[in-house]
Amino acid sequence: MQVIERNSDLRTVLGEVKKKGLRVGFVPTMGFLHEGHLSLVRAARQENDFVVVSIFVNPIQFGAGEDYQDYPRDLERDCKLASAEGCDLIFSPPVIEMYPPGYATFVEVENLTETLCGARRPGHFRGVTTVVAKLFNLVAPDQVYFGQKDAQQALVLKKMVTDLNMDLQFHILPTIREDDGLAMSSRNKYLSPRQRREAAVLYRSLQEAERLIQGGVRSAQDVKAAMVSLIAGAEEAEIDYVEIVQAANLLPLERLQGACLVALAVRFGKTRLIDNILLEV
Amino acid sequence: MQVIERNSDLRTVLGEVKKKGLRVGFVPTMGFLHEGHLSLVRAARQENDFVVVSIFVNPIQFGAGEDYQDYPRDLERDCKLASAEGCDLIFSPPVIEMYPPGYATFVEVENLTETLCGARRPGHFRGVTTVVAKLFNLVAPDQVYFGQKDAQQALVLKKMVTDLNMDLQFHILPTIREDDGLAMSSRNKYLSPRQRREAAVLYRSLQEAERLIQGGVRSAQDVKAAMVSLIAGAEEAEIDYVEIVQAANLLPLERLQGACLVALAVRFGKTRLIDNILLEV
Repeated sequence: MQVIERNSDLRTVLGEVKKKGLRVGFVPTMGFLHEGHLSLVRAARQENDFVVVSIFVNPIQFGAGEDYQDYPRDLERDCKLASAEGCDLIFSPPVIEMYPPGYATFVEVENLTETLCGARRPGHFRGVTTVVAKLFNLVAPDQVYFGQKDAQQALVLKKMVTDLNMDLQFHILPTIREDDGLAMSSRNKYLSPRQRREAAVLYRSLQEAERLIQGGVRSAQDVKAAMVSLIAGAEEAEIDYVEIVQAANLLPLERLQGACLVALAVRFGKTRLIDNILLEV
Repeated sequence: MQVIERNSDLRTVLGEVKKKGLRVGFVPTMGFLHEGHLSLVRAARQENDFVVVSIFVNPIQFGAGEDYQDYPRDLERDCKLASAEGCDLIFSPPVIEMYPPGYATFVEVENLTETLCGARRPGHFRGVTTVVAKLFNLVAPDQVYFGQKDAQQALVLKKMVTDLNMDLQFHILPTIREDDGLAMSSRNKYLSPRQRREAAVLYRSLQEAERLIQGGVRSAQDVKAAMVSLIAGAEEAEIDYVEIVQAANLLPLERLQGACLVALAVRFGKTRLIDNILLEV
């Protein structure tokens, strides 16, 4: 497995790969890999001839006061994990390679980015779409892989790919969870032992939503109230949002119908965790 | 020469072209081709194996009250002209193919777009960078060709290509002029005979700027005053701007030094014409 830091080196290597007609699968990440990422790498490995993983903590998707500086980084560990799953190339550029002085171009998806996490983290998705557009142009993958855990991110990026006519196949893979249901996230590392125990309530609240809806409840308000009440039982939990929206466009729902996304963001101390489930009503 | 209207057909044809390892040259236009466009097609023909010209009057780069509806269109004539220069494929999509309902993604270059035409046409360059990013993704060209007449557009697009790591070579070719010096433009068609005669003053004013600067004048203010005074001699001319800026970043200059862009936009009735020259001081 090669580890590459420079755009020009990446182009050289991938130019040779493409000359051979090999199919390139790509998994963009911010590193500190966990089973969620690795499930994407495994899918890319199965469905392509050459697998690229990028590891880049993207400064422009973090707001002021967010955790850019603290975001966990461990390239050596990431390389071992990715290599063990059959990754062929790690692209791990320094910030100056991605955003040299005078950098000025941004990609923005409207509408889908104005709700849920987009409403609470201004500029976040603009940073995500910009860096991912750059990475797609650098890697020119045939297929790309994202996790359902970041449901809004996946939807926004898929919209960017469609709207900008990017020539690649977009895959969204299921959320991978710990034994107690907590969605895997690099940010789980921030949690104190007590917060970590309490955080299991997030998935329990999503399961409760599923149970209620399958039991016939159709009022979004009633389902959200039950979730909020469950989460409030965790002493350190502070709810950012609990929402039920249309899965296709993220618009709010009052009566539950069709493909619904039940999504939440909850803080434990300084750590903001997100999770969601998709339900067909 | 093929004429293609659908994205999917374009991909199919170009997929075959690329499988053969052919080098693709691309000239994006809004049609109503003139010698300026054709000089770009000729360059693309010389330097590539397969030449694509797009013809698309891009609604999102026109502001309210601008000439989107009136912009001249003549696809049949354009096809004959492009074919005569050895163009292999015309891509001429309907608006709904480029912007289907729910379209929401935009590419924006900051800073360079905030001066000259960008300051007078809010949203114009956002429309240009968005459609060109889409076209580049659809065509995946090896080399692209733009005219120096639209100096700011060329600079903005080149910046987008660099910033977003698009893998293509960007060429800016010299402005092509009528016998009296008027820069070729599809919009010249709008001019009345009298406006057309008067419009020759634009290039004369640029030549006067060059004469003054070569003669040792270094005050941007003095050069601009001489240009304005010359243009004011044309009765129907109404100046939008006359500026001298640094060619690399379009920032204003007081003392002329280095690579300078002398640029102007002037209205004749409802017709807004632009022109410029590059000077090394």
